[in-house]
Amino acid sequence: MTDSPVFVSESESAALVDDDLALAAAREAFLATAHGSTFPVVIGSSSTPGTRFTLKSGSAGDLVGVKIGSFWPDNTDLPRHSSTIVLLDPATGRLRAVVEAAAANAYRTAAADALAVRTLARDDSRTLTVIGTGHQALHEARAVSRVRPIDRVLVVGRRADAARRFAADVAAATGLPVEAVDTRTGVAEADVLVTATTAREPLFDASWVRPGTHVSAMGVDGPGKQELPVALHDRAKLFCDLPEQSTTIGEFQHAPSAAPVALGAVLAGTAPGRTSPEDVTVFDSSGFALQDLTLAAALLHRHTVPGGTE
Amino acid sequence: MTDSPVFVSESESAALVDDDLALAAAREAFLATAHGSTFPVVIGSSSTPGTRFTLKSGSAGDLVGVKIGSFWPDNTDLPRHSSTIVLLDPATGRLRAVVEAAAANAYRTAAADALAVRTLARDDSRTLTVIGTGHQALHEARAVSRVRPIDRVLVVGRRADAARRFAADVAAATGLPVEAVDTRTGVAEADVLVTATTAREPLFDASWVRPGTHVSAMGVDGPGKQELPVALHDRAKLFCDLPEQSTTIGEFQHAPSAAPVALGAVLAGTAPGRTSPEDVTVFDSSGFALQDLTLAAALLHRHTVPGGTE
Repeated sequence: MTDSPVFVSESESAALVDDDLALAAAREAFLATAHGSTFPVVIGSSSTPGTRFTLKSGSAGDLVGVKIGSFWPDNTDLPRHSSTIVLLDPATGRLRAVVEAAAANAYRTAAADALAVRTLARDDSRTLTVIGTGHQALHEARAVSRVRPIDRVLVVGRRADAARRFAADVAAATGLPVEAVDTRTGVAEADVLVTATTAREPLFDASWVRPGTHVSAMGVDGPGKQELPVALHDRAKLFCDLPEQSTTIGEFQHAPSAAPVALGAVLAGTAPGRTSPEDVTVFDSSGFALQDLTLAAALLHRHTVPGGTE
Repeated sequence: MTDSPVFVSESESAALVDDDLALAAAREAFLATAHGSTFPVVIGSSSTPGTRFTLKSGSAGDLVGVKIGSFWPDNTDLPRHSSTIVLLDPATGRLRAVVEAAAANAYRTAAADALAVRTLARDDSRTLTVIGTGHQALHEARAVSRVRPIDRVLVVGRRADAARRFAADVAAATGLPVEAVDTRTGVAEADVLVTATTAREPLFDASWVRPGTHVSAMGVDGPGKQELPVALHDRAKLFCDLPEQSTTIGEFQHAPSAAPVALGAVLAGTAPGRTSPEDVTVFDSSGFALQDLTLAAALLHRHTVPGGTE
């Protein structure tokens, strides 16, 4: 194969991505965790203090490549997060494609959440609570509300004005009634509870969580970060993307004895998921390269075959 | 800055690169080791056994990015080694450029050697000996013979037929008289001795090296690889690209007490190089990301400004 590499620009990928594409790519990535490989994550920086880039690489089947994620905190006109996915040609090792995916990255992360909710939450989940009022939290609300018969969204933020503004944004994105509430109310009334924050300590009390609730912790991807109370783990069935990563840089770094089950194993039918409507299920997402590679491949396919789908 | 990313294809970069460009880029990279950063190297693979990719990332000044090197041993029509350099925009963290650089990578590595020779070898060096008969060895012979008044090249290979063929290639590339010789003759007659092999044990006896010789060890970039006899280090002044890397995955992994000096410090005038015509100088190259970033920037500049030079 000596095909020229394909370049998909940020504006192209932003126009191509949608929740269905991202969800199908997420499912493929989680299934691939059983046989694929992920390699050590690099955290680097530019010569400007405070900037950060991460390299997440992996391979599975005919996918091999790396996602370069960047965080430039001083960006004002542009988003602070960017993402570039590089795919190598599995047959030759040469460059196959470069996909700019800053906007698509938010869909990718939210799709992992939606996949976990579709796999683990009760079928009759109606109330979705989101803790966190940032850009990613909005994507989580939209993606999750599509996979269950959600008819009400509760939002929880530290600042009342941010929570009200976020509630309006979620209402616009989902078409659902949305209410800003206090943390205890949000947790206690949730069928599905999503945390999407940069917290470094538990956001709520484990005793507030009702039996039957599904919890997705989306914000923890590094040492010291924490969203969930450790006491919740004792009452819950625990799931994650990559167990080894989740117990080192994910939510379960705070619960050394936790043995979370890979969501991919549940999807593949090799491990049980929820077994009772009373189960509390917890899913921890710390993010892995195969999500980026399957996302890039899906975008590439849609880019190459206009109107094509996965 | 919201400029579109620039893509430089393999055929473009192969046409743009030359020894002068690579040497200037190497000098910039080695000078940047004093203030720049390099991050941990990742070694990964595709799902095909035997394939390998490496991620080398770094930043210095307004350069920040990663080189994806790949080695696909089963390639037949295409080279087994490929290289893709990704530069991020230092102002925004977004993608700035992608440079395919398989052919250019050989110039980059040879330029580090030429820079070391220009900095450390005697001005009157006339005999160049190359141990190794591969693709990279040819680039080393060409690049090094340009920076000293080399008037004779000796080549050493394990197989006589390969050595003869390589001698003809070197003669064509340099216009110099070239002779295939045994290892002892090659080492003993060298003013500049370059090793460019995949050896895992010393290639020659330290006692064969004459006073005043410069030795560049280009082949060692991983655990277990070795080209030089440890006894040589006791008689020589030791230099390398990155001391920490050289003593872990480079030649000096085999000499735990060695304290090689960064070539960049010699270039910057903050450390002495050769101080006598009798000195034996040794340079170990294991390769670092800043070489790739400065190479990509130079190619990009020449690509953007046709006819432009560094």
